[in-house]
Amino acid sequence: MSELTVRAVELDAADELAGTRKQFVLDTVSDRAADAAGVYLDGNSLGALPAAVPGRVDDVVRRQWGALRIRSWDESGWWTAPERIGDRIAPLVGAAAGQIVVGDSTSVNVFKALVGAVRLVSGGHGDEARDEILVDATTFPTDGYIAGSAARMTGCTLRPVTPAEVPGALSARTAAVLLNHVDYRTGRLHDLPSLTAAVHAAGAVAVWDLCHSAGALPVGLDEHGVDLAVGCTYKYLNGGPGSPAYVMVARRHQDSVRSPLTGWTGHARPFAMEETYEPAPGIDRMRTGTPSMLSLLALEAALTAFDGVSMNDVRAKSLSLTSFFLDLADEVLVPLGFEPVTPRSPDERGSQVSLRHPSAYGVVQALMARRVIGDYREPDLVRLGFAPLYVRHVDVVVAVSELAAVVAAGEQDDPQYAVRTVVT
Amino acid sequence: MSELTVRAVELDAADELAGTRKQFVLDTVSDRAADAAGVYLDGNSLGALPAAVPGRVDDVVRRQWGALRIRSWDESGWWTAPERIGDRIAPLVGAAAGQIVVGDSTSVNVFKALVGAVRLVSGGHGDEARDEILVDATTFPTDGYIAGSAARMTGCTLRPVTPAEVPGALSARTAAVLLNHVDYRTGRLHDLPSLTAAVHAAGAVAVWDLCHSAGALPVGLDEHGVDLAVGCTYKYLNGGPGSPAYVMVARRHQDSVRSPLTGWTGHARPFAMEETYEPAPGIDRMRTGTPSMLSLLALEAALTAFDGVSMNDVRAKSLSLTSFFLDLADEVLVPLGFEPVTPRSPDERGSQVSLRHPSAYGVVQALMARRVIGDYREPDLVRLGFAPLYVRHVDVVVAVSELAAVVAAGEQDDPQYAVRTVVT
Repeated sequence: MSELTVRAVELDAADELAGTRKQFVLDTVSDRAADAAGVYLDGNSLGALPAAVPGRVDDVVRRQWGALRIRSWDESGWWTAPERIGDRIAPLVGAAAGQIVVGDSTSVNVFKALVGAVRLVSGGHGDEARDEILVDATTFPTDGYIAGSAARMTGCTLRPVTPAEVPGALSARTAAVLLNHVDYRTGRLHDLPSLTAAVHAAGAVAVWDLCHSAGALPVGLDEHGVDLAVGCTYKYLNGGPGSPAYVMVARRHQDSVRSPLTGWTGHARPFAMEETYEPAPGIDRMRTGTPSMLSLLALEAALTAFDGVSMNDVRAKSLSLTSFFLDLADEVLVPLGFEPVTPRSPDERGSQVSLRHPSAYGVVQALMARRVIGDYREPDLVRLGFAPLYVRHVDVVVAVSELAAVVAAGEQDDPQYAVRTVVT
Repeated sequence: MSELTVRAVELDAADELAGTRKQFVLDTVSDRAADAAGVYLDGNSLGALPAAVPGRVDDVVRRQWGALRIRSWDESGWWTAPERIGDRIAPLVGAAAGQIVVGDSTSVNVFKALVGAVRLVSGGHGDEARDEILVDATTFPTDGYIAGSAARMTGCTLRPVTPAEVPGALSARTAAVLLNHVDYRTGRLHDLPSLTAAVHAAGAVAVWDLCHSAGALPVGLDEHGVDLAVGCTYKYLNGGPGSPAYVMVARRHQDSVRSPLTGWTGHARPFAMEETYEPAPGIDRMRTGTPSMLSLLALEAALTAFDGVSMNDVRAKSLSLTSFFLDLADEVLVPLGFEPVTPRSPDERGSQVSLRHPSAYGVVQALMARRVIGDYREPDLVRLGFAPLYVRHVDVVVAVSELAAVVAAGEQDDPQYAVRTVVT
């Protein structure tokens, strides 16, 4: 592989984003020797730790909570954090300020966004004209589960389709369409501009789930007129385990959108403690309860890794990594029984590559034992994420090499991998 | 006040819980001299920092996230944390294990619990027999706001009543009743056993909000047959700013309760990524999305302050503190224009005391300048919380003395307090 390594080193030397890697803690040695260094290709599940986070969290705990206590809601900017951090995410997904608020999990935000979307066109319980929600049937399942509940509670019918089927499925009955920008399983990038335009042409509202695209590629929410969007922050945005998700509502909808989760922090006058709910002006109305400040402020520190970074450079790096991997996979891994399922066309690819293999679970476990961290997805996928801010081309070479070594040695069939435990 | 101080020192010397104070960081000196020491009587809004938290959070950030990364979902017990921490809260509120799960904000949990409650008796959209939700009209407003949305989305009518009016308002139409155990404004403790029994006698479901009682007094959820309950963890449970809330579902309802927030983590087989939602057995079905782990694990460390502590001792200490305060208030503060609104009867009192004063906002601000931290509640209340694990009787003497000094000097009328900023 030495020729390949030379090529990888050349690519890394020319990398516009080479400097961002040092903003992450990647070479930590824990109490186990196996944790030292290694190649981390699971940033599409849990982003690596940004170096700015530990100090910030310690300050939040010891000084802001421990010393200032309740006064930190004002003096440490806790109260305004959901919108302030939303405004840090906004440029990464192509949204102007004042359209994103951070808080709650992705699942909760899908509920808020989808019910809010239906109410924009139907005024509440589905009327006869618009009583159908389309949902990407290939998406991460929580979107479908939540969409099912949102449909039931708004008197709508839920219709699962693939993204390709959306244009044909749209009708005068369609209230809202929930789509995933990048498929979590295959890594396929769906055509946000044209699908959004098709949804609008049908008079419906487009809700996009950006979990697997935000932070890895330009999204262009405003440019393409997206109505609402949600996303997690612990994948390519590196906010930490379970860091709060966000919801985006386009400014043109903010006066009319109605959240089903009418918590006090979204009230027009939250501290007046009034008996009647009146939604706040602007994006604030999408707030629900008191946000988890430790996780929220860790995210704020994590986002500094994107300071001065162009999302076009991020996209170029991401495609360079995944193209390099796919080229090597064709040469080295396909002959060993792997089948790439991620699209070859850069226009249809996110920032991950998934390989089908009949013993995918064992392959991933054996790969991790060799200190290359990826993950497994049912029923037969090896999933590898290429976080553009810290993954290098030399890591690609190591990953391909170790994958080949695993299968060459038959390590994936080790009986210890017969029982499966998987976490997203 | 020296005679009083002697009495306070005697009471503190006899305090069964005197040892728990050292588990909190109370004498931190921040970068401002005014932050040094002082008396903290706002633990009913944000509990003080438990000493066990900073080290635990640092380990979670640097080792569990930074080094083990994705493997921590299994190896560091992240996945099971919501139920594990629920089982730590359970004995503090009188619930057997396996009935509480931690995650989401209180507002989100009120929505889950109340919709779940309505569905227990009506099977979904309100039928003719049970289509009314009663809600405590004096409660913290988010409960009423969320109940309004829950009612709308289940086809029910919302009827605001006071807790005293509940027995008379119950009927064959009542589906569920949402009550607050301790009123956030007055500190009144409502009669959970008799109100729950009345709700049951009417064939309805009782949902209790424990935000202002959990960790301050015995709740007896199982003993009194409470159906569902919710609560925050950042007040008397000291979990930190915005730490995740919890929901309790009595075991007898767990097979039939249906959450409206059908996130993937509450699925029977979350990692199978199935298209159809099937709720998990037991309390797990009340999970929604990925929990904010930093905030969640800070809470777990915080709860160790309750290790070996009897809730009866907590209650005895709490009543001793509030009785002592009320006695001194009668003597010293009433003549200065303060009017206690918290019930005198111990059976009707939580762990806070609220005093009405025409310049309450200025009083609280001036009191804080004297390093006694309480809070203000609209329209005219000085609210002081007595967290039994770390507040002492000597703190009561300081608080009364400083309140008297504020008003004696007219400090509450300082023009700088003309503009109000308040946070709960």
